[in-house]
This record gives sequence, C-alpha cells and structure tokens, in this order.
Amino acid sequence: MKDFFKLKTPQEVLSLVGSLFEPVEAETEELTASIGRVLAEDIGAPHDIPTFKRSSMDGYAVKARNTFGATESLPALLTVVGEIAMGDTPSFELKPGQTAKIWTGGMLPDGADAVVMIEHSHALDSETVELAKAVSPLENVIQPGDDIKSGVALLRRGMMLRPQDVGLLAGLGIGEVPVYRRLKAAVISSGDELIGLRDPLTPGKVRDMNTYTIGARLSAMGVEPLYMGVVRDNYEALHDALDKALASCDLVLLSGGSSMGARDYTVQVFESFPGAQILVHGVAIKPGKPTILGKKGNQALWGLPGHAVSAMIIFSVLVEPLIHRLSGRVDSGTHAITVKASLERNLESATGQEDYIRVKLIRTGNGLKARPVLGKSGLISTMVEADGLVRIPMEAEGLYQGDEVEVIPFEREYGGH
Amino acid sequence: MKDFFKLKTPQEVLSLVGSLFEPVEAETEELTASIGRVLAEDIGAPHDIPTFKRSSMDGYAVKARNTFGATESLPALLTVVGEIAMGDTPSFELKPGQTAKIWTGGMLPDGADAVVMIEHSHALDSETVELAKAVSPLENVIQPGDDIKSGVALLRRGMMLRPQDVGLLAGLGIGEVPVYRRLKAAVISSGDELIGLRDPLTPGKVRDMNTYTIGARLSAMGVEPLYMGVVRDNYEALHDALDKALASCDLVLLSGGSSMGARDYTVQVFESFPGAQILVHGVAIKPGKPTILGKKGNQALWGLPGHAVSAMIIFSVLVEPLIHRLSGRVDSGTHAITVKASLERNLESATGQEDYIRVKLIRTGNGLKARPVLGKSGLISTMVEADGLVRIPMEAEGLYQGDEVEVIPFEREYGGH
Repeated sequence: MKDFFKLKTPQEVLSLVGSLFEPVEAETEELTASIGRVLAEDIGAPHDIPTFKRSSMDGYAVKARNTFGATESLPALLTVVGEIAMGDTPSFELKPGQTAKIWTGGMLPDGADAVVMIEHSHALDSETVELAKAVSPLENVIQPGDDIKSGVALLRRGMMLRPQDVGLLAGLGIGEVPVYRRLKAAVISSGDELIGLRDPLTPGKVRDMNTYTIGARLSAMGVEPLYMGVVRDNYEALHDALDKALASCDLVLLSGGSSMGARDYTVQVFESFPGAQILVHGVAIKPGKPTILGKKGNQALWGLPGHAVSAMIIFSVLVEPLIHRLSGRVDSGTHAITVKASLERNLESATGQEDYIRVKLIRTGNGLKARPVLGKSGLISTMVEADGLVRIPMEAEGLYQGDEVEVIPFEREYGGH
Repeated sequence: MKDFFKLKTPQEVLSLVGSLFEPVEAETEELTASIGRVLAEDIGAPHDIPTFKRSSMDGYAVKARNTFGATESLPALLTVVGEIAMGDTPSFELKPGQTAKIWTGGMLPDGADAVVMIEHSHALDSETVELAKAVSPLENVIQPGDDIKSGVALLRRGMMLRPQDVGLLAGLGIGEVPVYRRLKAAVISSGDELIGLRDPLTPGKVRDMNTYTIGARLSAMGVEPLYMGVVRDNYEALHDALDKALASCDLVLLSGGSSMGARDYTVQVFESFPGAQILVHGVAIKPGKPTILGKKGNQALWGLPGHAVSAMIIFSVLVEPLIHRLSGRVDSGTHAITVKASLERNLESATGQEDYIRVKLIRTGNGLKARPVLGKSGLISTMVEADGLVRIPMEAEGLYQGDEVEVIPFEREYGGH
C-alpha cells in the first residue's frame, strides 16, 4: 500500500506508458479521410514518379548533341516535326536534326534527351526553328524516378499523415491507406458538487467543465469522445460508469475526486475490475499531483484531478503521449513544437517536482516575452488568459527573469470539430 | 491589361484580402461542436464563477477573528457544529466560537470568512477541535468572482475557441455558442495531363495530387471541401466547373494551368462571371509566382500553380489568411507559431521576391538545425522530407549558414479528419 503513495516522476510515468501499452490494431481508410491518421505500415512506391521523361520548361525537345556549339550568333537549325502538350503521348521519334515543340510537363518523345527553353528559340516557319543555346543531355528534363523511386519507402509506419503525405499517396495511386484505427475514450466527471451544463445552478454547486475541456482535446487529436457526464462520488456509481466505459473504450478519463474519499474510490473501483492494476498513484508534478493511472489489458484508466486547469495540464503532459502510444505514433508529435520567449519575471519552484506555469506571450520589438499568468491554480480564467505553458524541470529551483524559456503553445489548428 | 501582369508582393495580396473580403454570417453551434470555431460575438459572463465562497483546502471553516493569536502552544478551542462536503448547502450559520469541518471546494457557511488547514487541527472529540494557526479573513477561501466576474467579456469576437475556452463556456452554463458558419471550398484540378486516383496510368499522364493536398489542408482548418476532381484545360470545361462551384462555395481553389494557355483560360473564365474581377495576377513569391486571385461578391476565386509544392506553399502563405478573414478570425493564427533553428548552409535569394525554402529540422546537442531540402521545386518528395518552411524576405539577398531562422512547421494536430 505504501508504494502506491510514492510519487512517480512524469518521466517514469511516460516510461511505463511506452513499455506497458501497445498500439491498437490497424484498419484500411479512404485516402481523403486519412489526414491526421497514423500509418500502420511502411509504404513503398509501386512505381516511379514521374513515370516518364518530362520537360520542366516550355521549349523544344532535342537531341542534346544537335545543339552543341549553338550560340546567339550561330544558332542550330532544326526541323520541327511535332508539338507535345501536357498529357500527350508523342507518336513519333526524334531523328537527328529534328525537334518538337514541348510544353512544361510534356512527355519527351523517343530520341529526345534535353529541352531548349523557348526564350532561346526563333521560329523561322512552321517547320524550322533556330535554337540559340547549347544544352547538355538531361538539361530541363525530369527523369523517371527523379521525384519518387519505385520501391523506396518514403512514408514510414508510425508517422502521422500530413497533407503532403496524402498528396504523395495520391500521386502513387494509393487510394486506401493502412492506418491504426481511431481510439475511443470515455469522459467521466465525478464529484457531488458538479452539475451538468443545463442543470439549474443552486448554492454550493459548480458546473462540470472537464467534460468539455477534455472532450475538446480528444476531438482535436482525432479520438472519439464518449461523453458519460457527471457521476456521483460513490463506489457503485463509479463502478457502473467504468463498467460501461470499459465495454467500448480504449481509455477512460475520470476526472474529479479532489476530496480524499473520492480518490480512494477511484483506486478501489479501478482495482475491482479483473486483471486491472494501478501503475501510478500520484505524480511529482504541479499542478496535477493526485493523478492515477491504471491498466486493464491494453486499456488505460486515468484518474485526473478535478480542477479544470490541473486536468488539462495532465492531459497535455501525460495523457497525450499515451494516446500517441495507443495510436501507434512514433514521430515526435506536437510536443516538439515550442516557442522560445524571454521570461518576464523570476519564478520559484520546489525541486523534486516538475512545475508547469501558464504564460501569456507578449510580442515586443525584441522578440517574444513570456508573462506568467498569476492566480489560484484551479481557476479556468488563467488558462483562458494564457497562451501556453512553461515547464520548470524537476531539479530546478526556479527560473530567472530574462531566461530564455520554451513555451508549449496552446494554439493549434483544431479543424473546427 | 498591363497592370494584370505586374506582380504583387505577398504583403499587398494580404492587404487586399483584409480590405476587400468580409467575414461570413454567424450561426449558433452546440458547445461540444464549437471547438476550433471562431466566436462571432463577445461573450460576457452571466454570473460570477464561483457563485459562492468556496474553501480551497480541506480543513475547518471559521470566523478568522476566533483564531487570532492561535499557535501550536496556545491553540484556539472551537465547537464543531457541522461538516460540509463539496456540493452541500450548509444549513447553519457559524456563531462566535463555532467551526465546521469543510472539504476542498465546499461552500462556506454564513458567518465563516476563512479556513484553517486540516494539518493545523487536532480534534479533541466529535464536538471540539483545537486549531493551532491563526488565519486572516479570506485565507484559503475562493470568493465569488475570483475566477470570472459577472459581465466581464473574457472571450472576444474573432477568437478561435480552444479547449479551455469551451470549458469556460461550460462553467458559465452557455451551451449554444455564436460562431461564424463553416466555410465551404471547391477544389478543382485542371490539366490535360492529369488523371484521377483510380484511373489507369498511361504514358504522358500524371496523377492529380492537388485535390488531396489542398483538400487535406481545408479539412484540417475546418473548411468543408467540395471535391470537383480533374477538369480539362479548356474554357467550357472550366466555366462549367466554376459555375457549379460558385453556386455553393465561399471560395474556389483551382489549381493547374502551368501551361501558358491554361493560365489565360483561368483569368478569362474568372472574368466571365458577372461582377467578378481579377485582383491579383502574379505574385512576387517563389515558388508560386503564377498565382491568381479573383473576387465575385464575397467569394474568392484562386488560381493556384499546378505544381503540388507551389500550390501548398501558396495555400499556407496566402489562402490560409483569406480563410481566416472569411471565418471572422482576428487572432494571430497558427502562423504565429514558428520554431527557431540555426541554418545549416548558405541560401541565395533574388531580391524583389519572397522565397520559401523547405527545410528538415535536425535535433542537435546545440538546439535545432534547419537543413534545406534540395531538389527540383515541383517534387512532392521534397515536401514529404521537409519539416517546415523558412521565409527569405523580399529585400534579402539570402541567408547565411548559422543564421537563426524561424521555421514555419508543417507539424500540426490534424484531428484525424
């Protein structure tokens, strides 16, 4: 029992997440729906891109050697035997002394190995052109495989598909994509003081915010939220809710229970499910210390703090990496994106815990300043005012005014979910 | 006619976008669906949060003056008249000499003005407690309005709603949110060389990628794409497609026509619609120079370059700000997020145009390095390999190895659309 109450560091929690949970199974998704999904296999190119020699300029397709020595004063004189638009398959072959007009993207005819730009041409009549510049073989030509070589795996398992990756797949004619399936997460708020969004507000009660902040974070990450609403702070009610959640979800996010009793219920209820175990009971982080992580098979059971701010910060620091793990994601993730700023005032911090400080970013002539947002830790207004978080590492006693800090920005592209 | 061919700077294009287009109309959206949407009105708090005096600690609610002078050696002796859990409405009033046990988040009874932490208490029996610490009035108490004051507009028209903003609205009991309506955009690829994703690949043809890269960027921004597929490069086909697009869309994204003839068609077709005008024909930017912007009422008509890379860069630099403008967005947007890195090699640039260079970010012991991704400009593989873009300003002749550059990252949270 004692071990349960030993705080784990955030790094220890992340190690457990990485070693004890596995990616979910893969499925096949339509290309247009695959944006933001995680690739479940390496994808090798089934063929070169381009598949044929293309001109990268408007001009004349030539045998390069027919232009050797050509200059303004002594142009090469060639016979025009055709014109090639984009999309055409030339029906002729260039013979020595012949050329064909060609447009950007057009397919070089057999026998041609270079293109002279139109700026260096002078048409004498419909069948004869002067070319005033020598080109070397392959000049102004994109060769088969210059963009993508057949068999090369440019897209790797575990990467999140970005617009350009989807474009590449389209270019390869791959219309169905192997991706890890979408996750589903139950969102439960517990607390006897909580009421729902449309309940009448009576003295002593506060409205549930965590359902909405956490649901929004899930949606933005492509995880389907199952909204289970407010559950009373007692064993039976929590057990029933968890039972329902575990029947269909990959993870459960139970927030609340900042009262001592409720915290005990959370652990008891988690442990009451066969095969479930508690991995983490308390994290050396501020805010967010009373965080619980349990595991049942490959399902994750989170007990998040009841305070809206603490729950959101734990989501960013610990839950988001777990979601990436279950999603099969192995690239760096959005956590890699930080904004450098100069700290506007000293910040104290106790050693032995990671501190996350809300900051507002102020644009100055001299770069960005990070202004700590003061205020009691539970207040949602501080999160609304802030633009991001600054982490103070475990071992640091604080940060000094003027220190360069890395701000984890709140601003994301939420896609209007 | 000449004026059309004078290149506009990206800044001039953005000024036109800001002055000539207006936000679309507002609508009401359910709270859970409002994440990532743009607020269409300032929202003032209809009531304080919290609405009552709450304890921020587990402990004893007191009249502060009953604890004045209390110490470990000389504790205050008080009569316990009740216990208040979270969510309770206390049915009693504290009289001098009385206290009540209270849990974090609990409502202070009338007559109480402070809380002594449980650590400083010693219960003698069920009705008597020793409190070994003096507290001042309001100590360990969150007052009505400490988080949000009634009437204060914390959320402003034009901001994109983040998870914490949605949480605040939930806390205020606001379940329907005034937001600008979603945009709809037609995506058209033109080019006689283009074939669709599932068409057989024949010599001279290439598969349409822009439908997918642009559709993906739109989805990620919450804009509904209307996929119109590949359209042949002639006046009638383009006119028919535009006619259909303009019937239901706020903007049209027509890519292609890197051939000279097709570019002329684009302008002609744009101008053929009553009331339509061409605002921009050519931009001083590389890649992406042959970009066209037209306007019909409040509808935007974009002619984007056919090259997948150029089209994506123009989307990021010019189309995204237009979408923000039509969406009513006035905050800084994702463009504000850049990652600082040290440039790994010299980059040349012609003055008089903005250059956008694809770079790969390399993590080193000494911070991030930005490695330019070389390769011909039209190749999608360069975008797949890159992690972001570096802008070289109009007036610069280049950047030097070791320069600190701001990288606009490709990495976003795409929400698994």
